[in-house]
Amino acid sequence: MSLELSVIVLAAGMGTRMKSALPKVMHKVAGKPMVNHVIDTAAKLCAAKTMVVVGPDMPKLIETVSPHPTFEQTDRLGTAHAVLAAKDGLAGLSGNVLVLYADSPLFTAETLERLVAAREAGDHAVAVLGFRPDDPAGYGRLVTDPASGELLAIVEDKECDAAQRALNFCNSGVMCFRAEDMLTTLEAIDNANAKGEFYLTDAVAVSRAHGKSCVAIEVDEQETLGVNSRAQLAVAEVIMQDRLRKAAMEDGATLIDPASVFLCADTKLGRDVIVEPNVVFGPGVTVGDNVVIKAFSHLESCVVGEAADIGPYARLRPGAEIGAGARVGNFVEIKKAIVEDGAKVNHLSYIGDARVGAKANIGAGTITCNYDGYRKQHTDIGAGAFIGSNSALVAPVEIGDGAIVGAGSTITGKVEADALTLTRAERIEKAGWAAKFREKMHALTGKK
Amino acid sequence: MSLELSVIVLAAGMGTRMKSALPKVMHKVAGKPMVNHVIDTAAKLCAAKTMVVVGPDMPKLIETVSPHPTFEQTDRLGTAHAVLAAKDGLAGLSGNVLVLYADSPLFTAETLERLVAAREAGDHAVAVLGFRPDDPAGYGRLVTDPASGELLAIVEDKECDAAQRALNFCNSGVMCFRAEDMLTTLEAIDNANAKGEFYLTDAVAVSRAHGKSCVAIEVDEQETLGVNSRAQLAVAEVIMQDRLRKAAMEDGATLIDPASVFLCADTKLGRDVIVEPNVVFGPGVTVGDNVVIKAFSHLESCVVGEAADIGPYARLRPGAEIGAGARVGNFVEIKKAIVEDGAKVNHLSYIGDARVGAKANIGAGTITCNYDGYRKQHTDIGAGAFIGSNSALVAPVEIGDGAIVGAGSTITGKVEADALTLTRAERIEKAGWAAKFREKMHALTGKK
Amino acid sequence: MSLELSVIVLAAGMGTRMKSALPKVMHKVAGKPMVNHVIDTAAKLCAAKTMVVVGPDMPKLIETVSPHPTFEQTDRLGTAHAVLAAKDGLAGLSGNVLVLYADSPLFTAETLERLVAAREAGDHAVAVLGFRPDDPAGYGRLVTDPASGELLAIVEDKECDAAQRALNFCNSGVMCFRAEDMLTTLEAIDNANAKGEFYLTDAVAVSRAHGKSCVAIEVDEQETLGVNSRAQLAVAEVIMQDRLRKAAMEDGATLIDPASVFLCADTKLGRDVIVEPNVVFGPGVTVGDNVVIKAFSHLESCVVGEAADIGPYARLRPGAEIGAGARVGNFVEIKKAIVEDGAKVNHLSYIGDARVGAKANIGAGTITCNYDGYRKQHTDIGAGAFIGSNSALVAPVEIGDGAIVGAGSTITGKVEADALTLTRAERIEKAGWAAKFREKMHALTGKK
Repeated sequence: MSLELSVIVLAAGMGTRMKSALPKVMHKVAGKPMVNHVIDTAAKLCAAKTMVVVGPDMPKLIETVSPHPTFEQTDRLGTAHAVLAAKDGLAGLSGNVLVLYADSPLFTAETLERLVAAREAGDHAVAVLGFRPDDPAGYGRLVTDPASGELLAIVEDKECDAAQRALNFCNSGVMCFRAEDMLTTLEAIDNANAKGEFYLTDAVAVSRAHGKSCVAIEVDEQETLGVNSRAQLAVAEVIMQDRLRKAAMEDGATLIDPASVFLCADTKLGRDVIVEPNVVFGPGVTVGDNVVIKAFSHLESCVVGEAADIGPYARLRPGAEIGAGARVGNFVEIKKAIVEDGAKVNHLSYIGDARVGAKANIGAGTITCNYDGYRKQHTDIGAGAFIGSNSALVAPVEIGDGAIVGAGSTITGKVEADALTLTRAERIEKAGWAAKFREKMHALTGKK
Repeated sequence: MSLELSVIVLAAGMGTRMKSALPKVMHKVAGKPMVNHVIDTAAKLCAAKTMVVVGPDMPKLIETVSPHPTFEQTDRLGTAHAVLAAKDGLAGLSGNVLVLYADSPLFTAETLERLVAAREAGDHAVAVLGFRPDDPAGYGRLVTDPASGELLAIVEDKECDAAQRALNFCNSGVMCFRAEDMLTTLEAIDNANAKGEFYLTDAVAVSRAHGKSCVAIEVDEQETLGVNSRAQLAVAEVIMQDRLRKAAMEDGATLIDPASVFLCADTKLGRDVIVEPNVVFGPGVTVGDNVVIKAFSHLESCVVGEAADIGPYARLRPGAEIGAGARVGNFVEIKKAIVEDGAKVNHLSYIGDARVGAKANIGAGTITCNYDGYRKQHTDIGAGAFIGSNSALVAPVEIGDGAIVGAGSTITGKVEADALTLTRAERIEKAGWAAKFREKMHALTGKK
Repeated sequence: MSLELSVIVLAAGMGTRMKSALPKVMHKVAGKPMVNHVIDTAAKLCAAKTMVVVGPDMPKLIETVSPHPTFEQTDRLGTAHAVLAAKDGLAGLSGNVLVLYADSPLFTAETLERLVAAREAGDHAVAVLGFRPDDPAGYGRLVTDPASGELLAIVEDKECDAAQRALNFCNSGVMCFRAEDMLTTLEAIDNANAKGEFYLTDAVAVSRAHGKSCVAIEVDEQETLGVNSRAQLAVAEVIMQDRLRKAAMEDGATLIDPASVFLCADTKLGRDVIVEPNVVFGPGVTVGDNVVIKAFSHLESCVVGEAADIGPYARLRPGAEIGAGARVGNFVEIKKAIVEDGAKVNHLSYIGDARVGAKANIGAGTITCNYDGYRKQHTDIGAGAFIGSNSALVAPVEIGDGAIVGAGSTITGKVEADALTLTRAERIEKAGWAAKFREKMHALTGKK
């Protein structure tokens, strides 16, 4: 593949079977909208230009695919009509133009590269991606010349003769055009068919009528999955997760139960990372070597340093940066906070908008009170500090290096380095009160 | 199906292979005892009367199926004997009598309706539900007349001749009788067989001997699963969950990983609800449109309003009512409490026996102290109130609209609307104390 | 099997495909290193002596298999060479010597027992474990005499003639030797082959050349899985978990979704235990009869008494002992602590290094402050005590029987039995302050 490449992504479909207010192609797979999977795959091919054909009234979709140019297909008159909605964008292109479908997120860059290379190799007008299902019924058949390998025709299932019906080489819809004659070809497609639509598949017949050659290459059926329902969305998720899990294991991470670990397309796991069952990775997570992530942890947009120990039940929210050898334990939430090397936040804490200095120890039940209803404010905890359990640190607050905060304290302002600080109310003791209370309650409620 | 319908559910089996103190049919599938699945399916058919045949000493089972009448089968002398335990209930019935098995929870109302309709259509004495397994060995074969479609005989596997053994149409056990001659038929069944038991399958031979016709219709094998062990219980759960998940997705909910979402038979999910992996729904949950339920959430007997944001790690217990646009975040437990529209309980809180007013904000670590060991008491938090982190609200307590409670406070009684209230002990500061403590401890323990 | 048995476990492999700093055989399946699975299986056969052949520079592996003697294979010159690394350990043995592979953790004791018995039955020099894969390509074929059943030869795939290639009885690698002539046999093996290695498979040819007989028996292919990559490690985990789950269900526990329950090799579940979806058992867990373990619970090295109620989101860490009928609820961590019969720790608590007396009630948000940065200290809570919510118990602390601690208290030292004790700061109230604050903030931030 050496010539210039442009890409058109068809994304105008309504997706009524999704029963959703969201345009179908914005539904996510592995944490990323399907349309962005397709655009990102195109980017791997170094596409010079990627254009998206959208339907009417899809402002969110236009935003999602930004900064790529969009073209609106006002009426829905078939796939060729959809591509021609981008006519202005097609003018003057050279090299290759790939037509992709935003509801088909599983095609790999390798597959598309093979398709473009096949088109270039024979300087064909059109190259089509075909697949071989167990049961071809319902699909358009790709009729090829056994000698030359050229694609002779795409025949709709209903129009197949007996020999064609027996073929199991089927049309995936994905095509690569020679840019220079694409517009001429598309504009020659008519709608003289039962539905009165303009079909992109007719590009093969038109090209051959114009004396140009076409070609088809094969792809694994799994990549061709198009998503039209939430059940198919779930199938696409399964396939994508399977790919991501295998890649993570090949790179040297142990997923004890791969099927219960959810990755995003951009999750990065280091060597000898161990991930226990039931861990969910949202977008933007990078995990260093030798980290253990225990069960029931949930990570999003965060960085975990080498040999850190995370979970179980740890929630790392966007902006969490966990240092080397640090520990984040159970029922702990970290948000927009740096937990420096060797620091420990072991239990039942909320650390938000904060720095926890190296080797500091945050006791169970510690809360950074970062929000007053209007502003988020900062908590700074020095290296080696020790925050006693059940403390509330009311931001803005600054705990000096090596300081100790006594258990159960509510702290505001500044604590000097190496000082002990606490708030402790006087103790009230009433001997025998509990026994009497129980007697009274027993009389009142009958309970023992 | 137009005639009256009565139903007998056979539930007397011991279920010894379950190794359980609980009667087998009380073990649950999708959060509901198997016997209740069967009774509820009968209810969908508008059964006029549903009777349950139980074994000796099963008081809990009788309670579980209440208010349906039960009949005790004292000895276990076969299926026909079991049905006759309900003889008093059968007397005087007209129309159809369905015989169902409480350990077979997967038959659908559609299937049973087809069976009853088939019986009515030919005014047959008996209609039998058959299935076609890959390997029919061990099952009774249904011998039918290819011309009329009538059921000629049920032949036990051991008694099959070669031609019969080759049949793969097998008896599921489920039958529909013409009510008027059911008792006569059953009482004509004898126990002249190897085990000396009275078999319901003999009803076909008896009916035909009496000059009456029978019929068989086919059902998918999956529906016929009978549960005799915990492993089979797990299989029934998988099938039932699969049905529930597919229905939820068809209705417009996204289950990112359907296999890790556990639904109950009565779970209701609105449109564009997104359910992340690893969410468990107990009985009685209703979720409005556009709600997001993040990973590791656990919901039981609660209502979630439109566009609310739940989890991860949110636990909604019975009586939780979450308002539109409200947010319940991580490590939060809500029990018998109303969280009104737009209110937020984001982290590490327990809200029980309470009202959280619209747009109120509950800080991390807030606890409603609703229990004194004897009584549960109420917490009322007004609209727009702000509860500082790590606060304990000792019920009965009333926080006025727009009031602020300072972080780390313990509050009893009443806080006026728009007031600031807090409890804060005096601060004690000992400069250098921490450094000295570390020196001492280092000397004592050798640790740095 | 009646003669003495010795076992050699080959564990010297690098496992480069694991991309790990850890020796391959130390990677875990069901919570236990693979090599220990193999050693423990040998122990079930009452092996008199188990020797492990390790690679250079594997001190952690030597520790892991301790106290079993290890022998270092310095160079990697083939499997026979590896066994001979243990030459000193082999001298003078009698009876049987099994050769096992530390990266093949799925062979059962039953299978190995059959192998040993087959060797003894014919007093064969070597008995080999074979399997029948769908596609035997790549495996060494076991050529047997149809009449006598004797093993005639092991032929490498590359060296097979057409008839041999058609055989699908393949070599698993596992062998049992007659101890008395094992060394003679091994030392007669040469390295006159393409790779210049000494192959253990040649023991069959050598034995037969020495006029001794060999035999082969069959094992299910699944048991033969060898782990060379993390993907294969995940497959071994799936198979092992499947075995453990089936055994647990057969013994009378309900796993609602078996696939989401992770067991360890030593997990013990009582009768009528119900385990909800998504529960993880680490090593060393014993659960009594009638216990319910709700979703998202995580248990390690702990004991749960009869009819206790655990979870959801309960974390039982090493040393947790939960009494009969006790309750550990959501977001609760118990570490090295006894929770006596009928006690309740229902929500958001950390109980470490403690005793919670019978029928005591620990309020939500209670923290035992057991650590001062240097020492772990003890908390003792008496029977029937009631700890108010959001309390911090600063160890060493002793709460007497029947005492009540008021909500929000920080308690040190001793609380007398039946007393009420609390710490409560004075309350500050500023009428209208919240309304003014909101006005000011609204002006400052523009937020309402």
